[in-house]
Amino acid sequence: MQTISVSLGARSYPIHIGAGLLGDARLYAPFAKGKRVAVVTNPVVAPLHLENLQRALEEAGAQSVPVLIEDGEQAKSWASLDRVIEALLAARLGRDALLVALGGGVVGDLAGFAAAVYQRGIPFIQVPTTLLAQVDSSVGGKTAINHPRGKNMVGAFHQPLAVIADVATLDTLPDRELRAGIAEVIKHGFILDLPFVAWLEANIEKLLARDRAALEYAVQRSCELKAQVVAADEREGGRRAILNFGHTFGHAIEAGAGYGEWLHGEAVGTGMLMAAELSARAGTLRRDDAERVKALIARAGLPLRGPKLAIERYLELMQVDKKTEAGKVRFILLDGLGRATLRGDLDERLVRESIAAVQ
Amino acid sequence: MQTISVSLGARSYPIHIGAGLLGDARLYAPFAKGKRVAVVTNPVVAPLHLENLQRALEEAGAQSVPVLIEDGEQAKSWASLDRVIEALLAARLGRDALLVALGGGVVGDLAGFAAAVYQRGIPFIQVPTTLLAQVDSSVGGKTAINHPRGKNMVGAFHQPLAVIADVATLDTLPDRELRAGIAEVIKHGFILDLPFVAWLEANIEKLLARDRAALEYAVQRSCELKAQVVAADEREGGRRAILNFGHTFGHAIEAGAGYGEWLHGEAVGTGMLMAAELSARAGTLRRDDAERVKALIARAGLPLRGPKLAIERYLELMQVDKKTEAGKVRFILLDGLGRATLRGDLDERLVRESIAAVQ
Repeated sequence: MQTISVSLGARSYPIHIGAGLLGDARLYAPFAKGKRVAVVTNPVVAPLHLENLQRALEEAGAQSVPVLIEDGEQAKSWASLDRVIEALLAARLGRDALLVALGGGVVGDLAGFAAAVYQRGIPFIQVPTTLLAQVDSSVGGKTAINHPRGKNMVGAFHQPLAVIADVATLDTLPDRELRAGIAEVIKHGFILDLPFVAWLEANIEKLLARDRAALEYAVQRSCELKAQVVAADEREGGRRAILNFGHTFGHAIEAGAGYGEWLHGEAVGTGMLMAAELSARAGTLRRDDAERVKALIARAGLPLRGPKLAIERYLELMQVDKKTEAGKVRFILLDGLGRATLRGDLDERLVRESIAAVQ
Repeated sequence: MQTISVSLGARSYPIHIGAGLLGDARLYAPFAKGKRVAVVTNPVVAPLHLENLQRALEEAGAQSVPVLIEDGEQAKSWASLDRVIEALLAARLGRDALLVALGGGVVGDLAGFAAAVYQRGIPFIQVPTTLLAQVDSSVGGKTAINHPRGKNMVGAFHQPLAVIADVATLDTLPDRELRAGIAEVIKHGFILDLPFVAWLEANIEKLLARDRAALEYAVQRSCELKAQVVAADEREGGRRAILNFGHTFGHAIEAGAGYGEWLHGEAVGTGMLMAAELSARAGTLRRDDAERVKALIARAGLPLRGPKLAIERYLELMQVDKKTEAGKVRFILLDGLGRATLRGDLDERLVRESIAAVQ
């Protein structure tokens, strides 16, 4: 087991990474002993892991109730949030209760937001069961639901007490979701760590073949990189925005295609192609490095073309992205491979050309 | 103008109290200059104060859009929250925008919660226009909406940048709302400040007659007392719960009678009678002091009898109150007049008797 610490003063927490951790009572005991616990999950994850988790919680001295939400991105809605709140109230859970999010990014985002607002905030633990959630969404305290006008438009910063990333849960992950998770792994290399890009270029086939040691290292390195950024800028006042590399385009792809059509990681993969193209056109990334970006995304089996929407529609959808300032969209560009920079002064023509080049 | 500071480290903020402050551009300028501002208010308050506030914001260098929500407690709902979020998105407000809550406790609670969750949190200013909001709900960062199963069950701690309490706005407040506000003023005396109780006994008629100097002092003293408690325990880990004196019973009254039937302050007034009765029966308050509580609440013109619900229904409604711990309701008792204590070990028989005595 590897343990990484997210350093946030009184809100610091550990990320445990390893195979078989989901059923390890010792990891829950410090937070769950003597508590009433709601386990939020969905009908896809529950048959695989719920029993194992509830047994571990019982062994840790907690009494747990499951709360099921629907599968898929559409669960990040007011309606699902209200159903979780209703279930917590029906179970008469008080402010001293604990919530556990068992599942992928959607479960973590929704359950984390429910924990943030239930009775003005209760503690929660993330037990991510997809690669995307393990390397990205479960770490850093961002929680949210979607709005028809834009993704993650309603949410909170609410840090978990712990993240328990069991890489054995990835055995049952569909291939498409595995590849979507690899998109966020690759992203951490592109924006922060050139040697990690080289490691990924050498090990991408192992990840796709679910080699457990390779997966464990990829999760660990991603979490280390993300934890450093989050510790320096918890509430995204500045630097943290670089973690959204590929996301401004990606959110437009997801919203434009209709939530649920594209997996988040797929949209980020294609969004990174657009952002790398924009970086090349803006002169911050060499063309051969942009080709390296494209080659790695292609080897990960991610889509290489965005949906065929009008360019105007892309621009309109990006306009509501949260990274706007004074109405102007800010873009995260690669400033060489392994480095990222935030730019709010780009010529719209370059943005249009970059979208068109990846459609 | 009086200014009180709520000391919360980096989240400290001023409360300005005086007549005519609502239209004073200088109070908004430090936070609003160059910003886009959404002013959340309702159709009752807007005709009285919106134009004046928008003029002050413009003078302060801000560009503002009004967002209207319905009047009354029913506005603290998912539906109203979604309408505010929708309006902010339609106006293309980004994370750098500012929200102003113009109105009573309902507007402040809902608008504050919208600010807490819009794009994971934007700053906001409270401009309370009822006595209840000026002395209580606008101070301390509690925001929330209601759930059919209980009041304020969904919310956040989100501190404002400033509170601007213009006592001139109380001129147009209906009598019933004035009395409801006085209930929370009295509460601060009962739990924290015996000399203030004596001042209220001497000046209650002046408050009811809207004597401006008396109102200004009552608002100031209430805010000072509340600010001290909030500074010591921002997130209600312990001591802050005493501010809920009368509220456990009061929330049951509001929910049992149907939201909107009783004003919040009226329910708190009658709830304080039940809590004082319980304190007397539990032996922490002398009977003659309990009579002093009752006499002052009577002189304020507040209801002296709770709704005729079955005692079981009261107990059931109190069970979902957020102050439960391990499923047991905790009560705030008076430990002599001017002092409060939190008790989780009370005999249910005493609780039943206290409710029955005030029905």
